[in-house]
Amino acid sequence: MKDAHTFPTIGILGGGQLGRMLALAGIRMGLKIRFLNPEPSGPMEGLGEHMIGDWNEAGVLRSFAEQCDVLTVESEWAPADRLALVLPEGAALWPSPETLHVIRHKGRQKQRLVEARLPVPDFRLCATPEDALQAASDFGFPVVLKKYRGSYDGYGNATADSEAEVLLAWNALANRDGLLVETRVPFVRELAVLIARSPGGQCVTYPVAHTIQLEHRCHTVVVPADVPRTVIEEAERVSLGAVEAVGGVGITAVELFEREDGRILINELAPRPHNTGHYSIEGCHTSQFENHLRGILGWPLGSTALREPVAVMVNVLGTRDGPARPEGLTEALAVEGVAVHLYGKREARRKRKLGHVTTTGSDRADTIERAQRAARMILL
Amino acid sequence: MKDAHTFPTIGILGGGQLGRMLALAGIRMGLKIRFLNPEPSGPMEGLGEHMIGDWNEAGVLRSFAEQCDVLTVESEWAPADRLALVLPEGAALWPSPETLHVIRHKGRQKQRLVEARLPVPDFRLCATPEDALQAASDFGFPVVLKKYRGSYDGYGNATADSEAEVLLAWNALANRDGLLVETRVPFVRELAVLIARSPGGQCVTYPVAHTIQLEHRCHTVVVPADVPRTVIEEAERVSLGAVEAVGGVGITAVELFEREDGRILINELAPRPHNTGHYSIEGCHTSQFENHLRGILGWPLGSTALREPVAVMVNVLGTRDGPARPEGLTEALAVEGVAVHLYGKREARRKRKLGHVTTTGSDRADTIERAQRAARMILL
Repeated sequence: MKDAHTFPTIGILGGGQLGRMLALAGIRMGLKIRFLNPEPSGPMEGLGEHMIGDWNEAGVLRSFAEQCDVLTVESEWAPADRLALVLPEGAALWPSPETLHVIRHKGRQKQRLVEARLPVPDFRLCATPEDALQAASDFGFPVVLKKYRGSYDGYGNATADSEAEVLLAWNALANRDGLLVETRVPFVRELAVLIARSPGGQCVTYPVAHTIQLEHRCHTVVVPADVPRTVIEEAERVSLGAVEAVGGVGITAVELFEREDGRILINELAPRPHNTGHYSIEGCHTSQFENHLRGILGWPLGSTALREPVAVMVNVLGTRDGPARPEGLTEALAVEGVAVHLYGKREARRKRKLGHVTTTGSDRADTIERAQRAARMILL
Repeated sequence: MKDAHTFPTIGILGGGQLGRMLALAGIRMGLKIRFLNPEPSGPMEGLGEHMIGDWNEAGVLRSFAEQCDVLTVESEWAPADRLALVLPEGAALWPSPETLHVIRHKGRQKQRLVEARLPVPDFRLCATPEDALQAASDFGFPVVLKKYRGSYDGYGNATADSEAEVLLAWNALANRDGLLVETRVPFVRELAVLIARSPGGQCVTYPVAHTIQLEHRCHTVVVPADVPRTVIEEAERVSLGAVEAVGGVGITAVELFEREDGRILINELAPRPHNTGHYSIEGCHTSQFENHLRGILGWPLGSTALREPVAVMVNVLGTRDGPARPEGLTEALAVEGVAVHLYGKREARRKRKLGHVTTTGSDRADTIERAQRAARMILL
C-alpha cells in the first residue's frame, strides 16, 4: 500500500534504458520507483521494485498501479489506454492516453500538427498502392513510405525513387490500414528540441540540439546546435506549438528538419525522454529524466541551462550479436572528461543501443572529438 | 557465481548514503552493485542486491565476497580486516585493511602523518588524566580531547578551557585506551581536499574546498575555496602526502585547517567518499563516487575539473525526530538550478544527514545563496 506521508512512488511501464535513467534520476530525489515489464530486463536490474507480468491484462495493470502515485510510460507503445481504464483513484498517468493515442499513429500525429498550423513535410494517408503512387506523383520523387505504427530507427519505413520502388515498399510494409507517404525533405540539418511540460501547462525548453544520424540511427548529438538565431527561434516556436497541440506532459521530444532556407519542418514527436536528450544528464542543470519526473508529478520544472558551453552525446551501439561483454571500457574512460553510461542489457545485437557517452566543454570541435573517440573504443 | 565475462560486481559493506551514491554512480557505468549490511536500510532500498547479515561473521563475509569482484567499505568502521581474512582468490578489497587500520584510530593516524613529516596540530596520546593535564599545560588552553575511535560530527570529543574541564571531558569520554589530546588550532578556514588514487599510485586531486561547519557538522561546502594560490598549493601538497602516507586507494578525504599565516595543518583523514565531495556529482566531470569506483577497480581515474566556475553543497539535516516525511521539497525545486539529493532514510532525527542540495554557477555569492535557500526549505 502506498503511504501518503512518504515520498511519491513512480510506476514505469517498460524496462529499457529510458526507464533505467528515469529511475536513477528519481532515486536521487528520494522517489520510489516501480517497473512493470513483461519480462525481466538488464536495464532495470538492481533498480527499484519490479513486477513482471502481462501488461495487457487489466488485473496486472491494476495491481501494479495500486502501489504507485504517478504512472508513466517508457515508450509510446506501452498500453497506457488500458492502464487508464483501471487507474485507482488518486493515481495519475502522464503523458495522457490521448497524447499517446495521437503520437503513436504517425498519420494522426501529422494531422494534429497540421490542424495546429505547424509546418510538416507534405504527406498523405494512403489506403491503397494507387493512393501512394498518386501521392508520389503529386509530391515528386523521392518519397518516404512509413508504417503508421512501429516505425523507428530505420525500421518500418522505406525511401522510394520510382513507381516500382513505391510498389515494392508498399508490398513490404503496408498493413490493412495502408501507409503514410511523405515527401523526402531536402534538409541541411536534423535538429531536436526537448520540452518539459507540467499538467498545468508550464513549459521549459532545452537548447536546440543538432542530431547527426548514421544509417537511420541517432549517432551524435551536439548542443547547442550551431545555427543562426532565427533558426533557433523558429525551432523553439514550432516545438512549443507541437507540444501544446498534443498536450504533452513530462518530456516531449520534437525532431525537426532544417531546410537550406532556414525554414523548419517537424519530422516527428516522442512523448517521453529521448535519445537526443541524454546529454542533459551531465550537460544541463536539470536532466530530461528529472524534468520528466518533475513534470508528471506536477512539481516545478528545473532549469534547462547548460552547465558548460557545449555538450555532446554519442551512442554506443552493439558491434556483434551475443551476450554483452564490454571491451575497451577502460580505454574509453581514459579519454579526458568523458561520462560513460552503459545500460546493462544482457544481449548485444549489431546496432542495438547499449549505452552512450557524454562530454562537456567549451570548445565545440574538441568536445565532439572526445565523445566520438571514447564511444568508438567501447565494444559490446 | 560471478562471471568473468560480464561487468564487474562491486560489493559495498554498509547501507548509508555513501553506499547509495556509489551505487548510483556504478549502475550508470554498467557495474553490478551488492550491499552487505546488518539490517535493511532506506538508502540502499531499490538499489543493487542486498545481503542482510552479521558482518562480523566470517561465513557471512565470505559468502558475500564470493559474489563480488571488488569490495569496498562505506565507512572506516566496517570490518574490512575480517573480510580480508576470508577474501576469495581473485577478489580485491580497497581501501586496504592496513589503510583502514591506520585511519580508524585517531592516534595512529596522527602518528603516521608525523612520521611522514606532514603538518598536524600538536597532539599527545594520553593514557591517564594526568597525561592529559600535562599535555594541556604544555600546549596551552584550549585543548580538544578526542576518543581514538568513533568520534565524528561533534560526537566523542570535547573542548576544554581549564584543568577542571579536562577532567570532566576525560571522565565523560575516556575508554581504557585513554584519549587523544590536541591543541585547538586557531584557524581562519577549514578546507578539504579529496584525492582519488589507484592501486598503482596514480592520483587525481579535486579542487580545494572551503567547508563551513555549524554545530560541529558540515553545513556548506564551497568549491573552489577562495584562498591565495600559495594556500591551494600547500593544501594540495600536504593532502597528497597524507594519502601516500596511508596508502589510500579510491577516494581519501583530507580535512585541513588554514591558519591565519597561510600555513596548513591536517585535521583528519577519511578513507572513502566524503560529505565535502558531494558537490562533485554535479560540479565535476567525474564525481568522487565514480572516481572511488574507478580507483578500486584499477581503472583510469577521471577528470576532477569543475564544469562551472563554482559549486556549492549544503546539507539537509533532520529538523525533528520521527518518520522522515518530506516537506518543502517542491518549494526547494523551484529555486533556480538546484539539484536535490534525498537519501531515503526512513527515520528523521534532529541533525541527522538526510540529504543535500548542490548548485553550480559562475557567481560565488549567488551560487551559495541558492543552495542555502533551497536546503533551508526542505524539512524532514
